[in-house]
Amino acid sequence: MKLSKKIQGIQASPIRKFFKYTEAAKNAGKKVYFLNIGQPDIKTPPVFMEAIRNDGREIVEYGPSAGTPLMISAVQEYYRRYGMEFTQDEIIVTCGGSEALRFIVDCVCDEGDEIIIPEPFYTNYGAFIRASGGVIVPLTTTPENGYRYADRAAIDACVTPRSRALLLTNPGNPTGVVLSPEEMRLIGQAAKDHDLFIISDEVYREFVYDGKQITSFGQIPDIADRVILVDSVSKRFSACGARIGTVLSKNRDLLESLLKLAQSRLCAPTLDQLGSAALYRMDPGYFTEIRAEFEKRRDAAYEELSKIDGIVCMKPPGAFYITAKLPVENAEEFLIWLLREFDDGNETVMFTPAEGFYATEGLGRSEIRIAYVLNEQDLRRGIELIRLALSAYRRAGAPLRPACPASPDARTVPQ
Amino acid sequence: MKLSKKIQGIQASPIRKFFKYTEAAKNAGKKVYFLNIGQPDIKTPPVFMEAIRNDGREIVEYGPSAGTPLMISAVQEYYRRYGMEFTQDEIIVTCGGSEALRFIVDCVCDEGDEIIIPEPFYTNYGAFIRASGGVIVPLTTTPENGYRYADRAAIDACVTPRSRALLLTNPGNPTGVVLSPEEMRLIGQAAKDHDLFIISDEVYREFVYDGKQITSFGQIPDIADRVILVDSVSKRFSACGARIGTVLSKNRDLLESLLKLAQSRLCAPTLDQLGSAALYRMDPGYFTEIRAEFEKRRDAAYEELSKIDGIVCMKPPGAFYITAKLPVENAEEFLIWLLREFDDGNETVMFTPAEGFYATEGLGRSEIRIAYVLNEQDLRRGIELIRLALSAYRRAGAPLRPACPASPDARTVPQ
Repeated sequence: MKLSKKIQGIQASPIRKFFKYTEAAKNAGKKVYFLNIGQPDIKTPPVFMEAIRNDGREIVEYGPSAGTPLMISAVQEYYRRYGMEFTQDEIIVTCGGSEALRFIVDCVCDEGDEIIIPEPFYTNYGAFIRASGGVIVPLTTTPENGYRYADRAAIDACVTPRSRALLLTNPGNPTGVVLSPEEMRLIGQAAKDHDLFIISDEVYREFVYDGKQITSFGQIPDIADRVILVDSVSKRFSACGARIGTVLSKNRDLLESLLKLAQSRLCAPTLDQLGSAALYRMDPGYFTEIRAEFEKRRDAAYEELSKIDGIVCMKPPGAFYITAKLPVENAEEFLIWLLREFDDGNETVMFTPAEGFYATEGLGRSEIRIAYVLNEQDLRRGIELIRLALSAYRRAGAPLRPACPASPDARTVPQ
Repeated sequence: MKLSKKIQGIQASPIRKFFKYTEAAKNAGKKVYFLNIGQPDIKTPPVFMEAIRNDGREIVEYGPSAGTPLMISAVQEYYRRYGMEFTQDEIIVTCGGSEALRFIVDCVCDEGDEIIIPEPFYTNYGAFIRASGGVIVPLTTTPENGYRYADRAAIDACVTPRSRALLLTNPGNPTGVVLSPEEMRLIGQAAKDHDLFIISDEVYREFVYDGKQITSFGQIPDIADRVILVDSVSKRFSACGARIGTVLSKNRDLLESLLKLAQSRLCAPTLDQLGSAALYRMDPGYFTEIRAEFEKRRDAAYEELSKIDGIVCMKPPGAFYITAKLPVENAEEFLIWLLREFDDGNETVMFTPAEGFYATEGLGRSEIRIAYVLNEQDLRRGIELIRLALSAYRRAGAPLRPACPASPDARTVPQ
């Protein structure tokens, strides 16, 4: 029996590769600080479970394929608060943001069609695009340049006759980059000039710091027909296991195609939609406290990272990740060494090597991503362990990355 | 902006086409008996909601991509009861049987690869295959032959160098056909000879009547590496809105590919897995009562259908559908007429025209599917309305199907 080439071309989750090392470290009695996890430690607001617990239905039946009216209305009201008006049939509820992305990519990509994505990017985009037969065209960014990607010449250079869309995460995973309104307009203009869709994954929308405004590609009227918004309750409400996402669009042809895919899988989970509608109906004040907590953690993480000699790292304005370039040649080898050879007071640390976030071969090898979803004390200790380990790694004669000059845009800590 | 050809090639749900007519009938004060719905009216066993209500977690977090250990163990134990032994890593939990099918098709189909499916078939198979760039090769069956498809010469005639798998529903939707052990062996041998996967959608497994044994393609050892089982809690436990399905396979390469797709969408809904595990842990005696209820309804539906002059229809041995050939040229036109023009005591009826279940152009035009998920009285009245309407339709001078001889396999009611 033959298996499809397209799925064989998808990378297996790198987490599995390191699982045996973290298990071995734990079995050796070491405490491991997990800085690699994207699951927030914030409690899911109790209204989610209350709405489900109080439901009296006797049959957990199919809902409408596009989403339950209750959930769609709740999403509609949420968007209205940010000045975005969507009709109910411009909103489709999906099994997580993942299904939203998979559906969108299916709707825009035939075999060989291209999607432009700033790299480093959320690795699962690669799986969705490859499963669809599409091709990723990476718009390369660098740690020295603060991973910014709103560069018209660089975007233009990625466009070919097979280009179908720009796909971006804003605020960004893994970089934490947040687009400025000017950058959003630049990207919008590029999409217009090249007749591309903008697939804007905004699942971290509320996670912007330093008093920044919450923005969305849905707020720019003159590109409304080419913007496809992806959303989810996972990060926004710390309800990752609910698997409730949303696609929003004003493009009728796209909506019709999306609906066909939605119908083919019948519906998103009925009870989780009930709980998610309650989440969306919460007082928006909810985000103030969450945002303050993550901002505090971001500051703590950045402060600790800044103590590392030779690191290249900017203070990210959004999401809950920091991507940083370490003074090592190969962050993956360093991580394995950390888990196997290193400890400080019987403690060590786990992070995500960033190479898997790049489509371009060889890029990102010195970079890592950490998620600041731990409490401040554990977060500081985890990063301290990276710093201590780097000194020990150096002493052990490990290959180090040659120093490279930082651009003026990047906050780098002098070596 | 361009949209993908593959999604444009997918048919929109035919339900929408008739929605305006059922709405108009209801608005005109008619009572409509809906014989088109696949949502059972059986109550979801209370253990589902109890397991969720009693859960004390504070964060509705991601579960493992392959499924929660609790859910996987529950599925494993359920299969053990039918003499099938699967290790935990041979079981992957999905967002409904729909996602299971989508993943499987992605794993076996590159653009242009072929999947052989007995027609008439569950229409969403078409969407999954087209979305994947694959091609459906229909193995045509007929109402006169009782929709049976285990015909070696007919299967061989469908095979080409691009053939990758046989996909079948057993017990069947929309036909209710149940394979005999001999037929399963014949299909298994054909798959071996042509090196094909057998994708066996067994979501109606327990719905077999007349004292028949429950069988599965997972029970045939010599084809274990090529069998892919699809399963779901939707019909089995009347929990359609839970969106919990399963894939089971003993093919390591396939499992690895499936796991990559499962990882790319993170996980199936966490709470629904909790409830579904409780469903699978119920006493198997649960099915006895459900089966008796559906058998009674099937008998009632068949009895009523048998009163229709010129119908071609067998008594289906499984699932909860009957597909029948009506003495009309075009069942869709008849349905629209039923909803717009006909009433008996201000009542009319809705069924599913079967043409959409066929891939071959022009087939199935005289056929309809009814789902016997209503209580017996409503079911009998709904079918009576079809019978009364047919007489009126005849009198109105509607085009009738020419009579065709029945094969000895089919139970036909003489004209």
